Amino acid sequence: MTPLARRLRLGMVGGGDGAFIGAVHRMAARLDDRFEWVAGALSRDPARAAASARALFIAPERSYPNWETMARAEAARDDGIDAVVIVTPNHLHMPVASAFIAQGIDVICEKPLARTYAEAYSLAEKVRASDRIFAVTHPYSGYPMVREARRLVAAGAIGEVRVAQVEYAQEWLTELASSPQAAWRDDPEQAGPAGALGDIGSHALHLLEFVSGLALSEVCADIASMVPGRRLDDQVQAMLRFESGARGGLWACQVALGQDNGLRLRLFGNKGSLVFDQQQPEELLLTQAGQPTQILKRGAGEHAQQREALLRVPAGHPEGFIEAFAQLYWDYAERWTARETGGSAPYASTLLPGFEAGLRGLAAIEAMLRSHALGSQWVKLNY
Amino acid sequence: MTPLARRLRLGMVGGGDGAFIGAVHRMAARLDDRFEWVAGALSRDPARAAASARALFIAPERSYPNWETMARAEAARDDGIDAVVIVTPNHLHMPVASAFIAQGIDVICEKPLARTYAEAYSLAEKVRASDRIFAVTHPYSGYPMVREARRLVAAGAIGEVRVAQVEYAQEWLTELASSPQAAWRDDPEQAGPAGALGDIGSHALHLLEFVSGLALSEVCADIASMVPGRRLDDQVQAMLRFESGARGGLWACQVALGQDNGLRLRLFGNKGSLVFDQQQPEELLLTQAGQPTQILKRGAGEHAQQREALLRVPAGHPEGFIEAFAQLYWDYAERWTARETGGSAPYASTLLPGFEAGLRGLAAIEAMLRSHALGSQWVKLNY
Amino acid sequence: MTPLARRLRLGMVGGGDGAFIGAVHRMAARLDDRFEWVAGALSRDPARAAASARALFIAPERSYPNWETMARAEAARDDGIDAVVIVTPNHLHMPVASAFIAQGIDVICEKPLARTYAEAYSLAEKVRASDRIFAVTHPYSGYPMVREARRLVAAGAIGEVRVAQVEYAQEWLTELASSPQAAWRDDPEQAGPAGALGDIGSHALHLLEFVSGLALSEVCADIASMVPGRRLDDQVQAMLRFESGARGGLWACQVALGQDNGLRLRLFGNKGSLVFDQQQPEELLLTQAGQPTQILKRGAGEHAQQREALLRVPAGHPEGFIEAFAQLYWDYAERWTARETGGSAPYASTLLPGFEAGLRGLAAIEAMLRSHALGSQWVKLNY
Amino acid sequence: MTPLARRLRLGMVGGGDGAFIGAVHRMAARLDDRFEWVAGALSRDPARAAASARALFIAPERSYPNWETMARAEAARDDGIDAVVIVTPNHLHMPVASAFIAQGIDVICEKPLARTYAEAYSLAEKVRASDRIFAVTHPYSGYPMVREARRLVAAGAIGEVRVAQVEYAQEWLTELASSPQAAWRDDPEQAGPAGALGDIGSHALHLLEFVSGLALSEVCADIASMVPGRRLDDQVQAMLRFESGARGGLWACQVALGQDNGLRLRLFGNKGSLVFDQQQPEELLLTQAGQPTQILKRGAGEHAQQREALLRVPAGHPEGFIEAFAQLYWDYAERWTARETGGSAPYASTLLPGFEAGLRGLAAIEAMLRSHALGSQWVKLNY
Repeated sequence: MTPLARRLRLGMVGGGDGAFIGAVHRMAARLDDRFEWVAGALSRDPARAAASARALFIAPERSYPNWETMARAEAARDDGIDAVVIVTPNHLHMPVASAFIAQGIDVICEKPLARTYAEAYSLAEKVRASDRIFAVTHPYSGYPMVREARRLVAAGAIGEVRVAQVEYAQEWLTELASSPQAAWRDDPEQAGPAGALGDIGSHALHLLEFVSGLALSEVCADIASMVPGRRLDDQVQAMLRFESGARGGLWACQVALGQDNGLRLRLFGNKGSLVFDQQQPEELLLTQAGQPTQILKRGAGEHAQQREALLRVPAGHPEGFIEAFAQLYWDYAERWTARETGGSAPYASTLLPGFEAGLRGLAAIEAMLRSHALGSQWVKLNY
Repeated sequence: MTPLARRLRLGMVGGGDGAFIGAVHRMAARLDDRFEWVAGALSRDPARAAASARALFIAPERSYPNWETMARAEAARDDGIDAVVIVTPNHLHMPVASAFIAQGIDVICEKPLARTYAEAYSLAEKVRASDRIFAVTHPYSGYPMVREARRLVAAGAIGEVRVAQVEYAQEWLTELASSPQAAWRDDPEQAGPAGALGDIGSHALHLLEFVSGLALSEVCADIASMVPGRRLDDQVQAMLRFESGARGGLWACQVALGQDNGLRLRLFGNKGSLVFDQQQPEELLLTQAGQPTQILKRGAGEHAQQREALLRVPAGHPEGFIEAFAQLYWDYAERWTARETGGSAPYASTLLPGFEAGLRGLAAIEAMLRSHALGSQWVKLNY
Repeated sequence: MTPLARRLRLGMVGGGDGAFIGAVHRMAARLDDRFEWVAGALSRDPARAAASARALFIAPERSYPNWETMARAEAARDDGIDAVVIVTPNHLHMPVASAFIAQGIDVICEKPLARTYAEAYSLAEKVRASDRIFAVTHPYSGYPMVREARRLVAAGAIGEVRVAQVEYAQEWLTELASSPQAAWRDDPEQAGPAGALGDIGSHALHLLEFVSGLALSEVCADIASMVPGRRLDDQVQAMLRFESGARGGLWACQVALGQDNGLRLRLFGNKGSLVFDQQQPEELLLTQAGQPTQILKRGAGEHAQQREALLRVPAGHPEGFIEAFAQLYWDYAERWTARETGGSAPYASTLLPGFEAGLRGLAAIEAMLRSHALGSQWVKLNY
Repeated sequence: MTPLARRLRLGMVGGGDGAFIGAVHRMAARLDDRFEWVAGALSRDPARAAASARALFIAPERSYPNWETMARAEAARDDGIDAVVIVTPNHLHMPVASAFIAQGIDVICEKPLARTYAEAYSLAEKVRASDRIFAVTHPYSGYPMVREARRLVAAGAIGEVRVAQVEYAQEWLTELASSPQAAWRDDPEQAGPAGALGDIGSHALHLLEFVSGLALSEVCADIASMVPGRRLDDQVQAMLRFESGARGGLWACQVALGQDNGLRLRLFGNKGSLVFDQQQPEELLLTQAGQPTQILKRGAGEHAQQREALLRVPAGHPEGFIEAFAQLYWDYAERWTARETGGSAPYASTLLPGFEAGLRGLAAIEAMLRSHALGSQWVKLNY
């Protein structure tokens, strides 16, 4: 770990008291002690914003009424934030990101990157032209065993991937729900045209490409909403074809009782296979042709040497979701440090998902929506 | 169990020394002591036929050179066989069945029922007009926990099924194989037009309908052969729609390293879910809305009372594949007894898969083949 | 498998209709088609004996009123039984065995061998002087992965064993039970002085020694009955020392709710470890120093070549308890054949547990009882 | 969560760069943002102490050359630390604690509390007379499902506990090791007379009593060192008796290849059982008589309402060891707040393990050492 001269300064847009993902970002950023939270536009509701800021020990003058003000004010301070963290509903991702990028402030943005590919693409030129870091928080890519899986595939441990199966099943939307978190996700204005597909399908697709290195070429999808009264999809079945000729399937579902957060990836190559289950993130099953299945564990064996991710506690002391999420913050800190000091970033930090990963995810989502609209025809990705 | 006055008499076509599935049928039929093997046309090779018959303690005069002779000769005996068991490659299923049905002999036939729907359909009228029992050996439907799953779904334990996921993954054809068992399965003349789809996809589809009670209405499939030189498919991805409006997915694959015999079924209803994994057949996971997941075990709780399947040994003494297979023979014996005695068959025995189940499976397979040929369009089942 | 000229002939003492273990023996012996059941003294109750014999297709004249008659009559027949199977309560094991040994008939006897070491020892001289086969049915030693574990230990895969942990936990005696099976097990007259210790502790001890090759040298035990009104023990805690210097523990318990039949063995050597769980008998976990844990599966890899046990169906088609039990019958048939033909028995068949294994188990049980009586002092095995 | 007016201030003794457990304490304390690390005597080596302090953003003037100085200096500051965290080898626990208690500073101390019962007891009077909080970090008691298990036992979910089995197996000392962490643990001067028994046996015993509510009354132990050259024990087998009449076993071992950190607790009552495995900390298996086993999950069902522990992320987003450890810091913050504000502490915070739990653990350890020295006699706890 590169020592920092100071903690990096973060500000948050969205994520007021009661929000789930905002709290996760804050825990994740604190874990390795490389950040402090110093500013926020935590809620459009002034009272909630103030109370939330107070609970986070954010100085009152840096609790802003809105993100426009925050972007300008923080850019003007000598001790202004190094990065803004965007945890709003989807429709605000691009406007907020645009404002901070314009002020030269790094962006750490929730997924999906935007409501639509076009919406995200409108910012692409600015982001590409800038030297600002733009991270998209696909935290599952921060799990040590996910990074180990990526390393193994790249090293040829399973040969050429022939078949890839990914699924992400949850139960929390089995009934029509009215919580704020459920409500905006079912509002096309805020969430965009994709429901479960955008919310969790985006993670599944990222994980698949992150680990396998496969590039999705075309998709054929059947998308449905299984709960009366729901506007956006909660059940997605898709068939996948990859540029290499590999085949596969995606299932994303939020009406799957018994599935708390069932994200699973299985890759089958001509020389072996890999299985990762997010609910058992300390393990990775590797089978090589003619050999017994091996249970690879975080912090053990080859993996312990490779250091594509932090090893905070030894094998057998479970790390979990917050630690995986914190990996992305560690990556960001390393990337920031390399840029500011002119040094080179450690390899692991280059794995931080960025704007292009987010854009590519939206291209896949849109291809699936179009496929479904066409009666499940094969649709090529427009990326 | 209904006591039998004598053991039922079985003959086998195919299944000479070295064959896998023939030996399984023989063990299954022996397990509960309701059958004896007394005749066979075990191989076209006379020496192999004779040696195989000797090893099975079959009298030389009832080891026949071919099934045509066997059908006639056994029908003529007072102590002729009660049923013929057909374990040949697919192309012989219908010719052999036809010959024995014509002689008034019951048929126990391997799956898939035939190479094509049309081929099987050609026998339908005769079978339907006959009072002969025609069983198709889908042994996974004989697992006690599969039958318990069926009972639970029917009893409303998971409400209305919304999403059904079934998969059947094996590794044994990862490389181009030349064993006899692999060879005929890749020969369209013997196997028919479907490879993995017919070999294991047929089991997956049967299991899905058997447990869920859902009727498949249309399919959209992407079918591939991933190994250079292979003629028939080894990778099948399909999207499923059911008459009830439920959705789902099927994955069948024989190039999945690490998967010995990975048949798994997951059903998600509006009130609960069920998960069955053939490699852990003693368990069934039941989750009901708002309740913890329960691990249902063979021989325990409600199931112990229901008796939709035999309970040979207590919970914790694992039963497996042979025992599940033997359930089908038990079912047959009960059905035979009811017919011969004019009694009524126990409920469990009515679950024995029959000709219509086999026909329906072929309809689904052909719809998938046609969907794929049409570039993955939705194709309705013709049944 | 050595072909047999005829099926071997078996008779059973005990095991009338309703008995659990008798039925298991019968299924096990039938599975591989090397035996037929032709005689029995199935119950002291003549009506039950007759009905049971009829259900087993045993000729009325070979359904005997008692075992004394049966031993004499079968010995006098040209087609008399090759072996008697003893499935009575413990107190009859030695008297019955003695009668059949005296007639030159092989014995297959349930465990524990007798109520006490002395009782069994009284027969030792006769058994040792005879060339009759005396098998003791410890079926867990018939699991292919148990035999693979034994092979791996002997081959040095885990180095020198330092620590051995074995446990056998069941729930079925959580309450005071009045079923016939429970009743005789709690009657010192029929069961002997050990309850759970004799019933399942004997299996655990055999499994430990069978796999590890370790010789138990001394024990220190705490034995208890946790249910008011129960006469014999249902909870056994013991510390173990082996001749090699290895240490270990034994836990046997029949009041362990949630444990159907939880027999587990774990061996830790200086180079690796092995874990076997009877309720997942298709797998064996092998960890070698510095390597990931491997999931060894029946029928796969090295094991598939070794053939220390039958492989009836391929990996992924679960075999279970009945198949393991059938291995002992296969072993017996091979041993019988070798003796009768003057050939050599296959290696696997030499693993059949015999009289000495049973005697040694009783020595360990008595040492534990004595240790407990002495306030948990270390007691050496008297063997 | 009670809002804090400010972050509490922590100082650390021991835990310089490279130390494992010091880093865990720091992550744990940061996670929920209720603490800041402001002072330390991180190493006796001045250069290492300074570098470590710099990496932690501790002001140079609060990086002390030794704990004696630190205690005095921090007590004299207006902004002095609220608590000292002691992460030294065992022999320093009591001297350091004594110095800070004397200055009126709260203590958060690693386990075991001291080398011996007598050593710890010497501080008991002072601690009992003080209103300072004295916490002992048994982090496994911070797992939500451990607290849920405790709640369930107390609520009678498994009835009266009859049998308790606890084990803690690790592999990291399979070979004689020379790392600093291994070295002091094998030095009686620093570690005390117990090796694995003190290092991990102490955790196992605490977990057992914490969850079950059982009071250990007497023990019978066999303690060994399996690696030539090792001075302290690495293998502990013990039989346990509890005041209620319950029985049980303890196994602690650090030469168990394949066991990363295998802490498991199983409780069997007359109405049910509970199983907790530290390596799957998100789950708890509950079996109630006559019911299927239930998989209880963190954040789901009744548990979600009870709040005996923080729920930072929803079910299915794995929490782990660091989060469990952070629970103890949260408990401490709540206890501190209640004391300072005169309010009442939330129930969960009363579960924070304290001085008496540490003392009781030492009493059990010493009883085991004495039992072993006496040739494995039963020895009553002197507490």
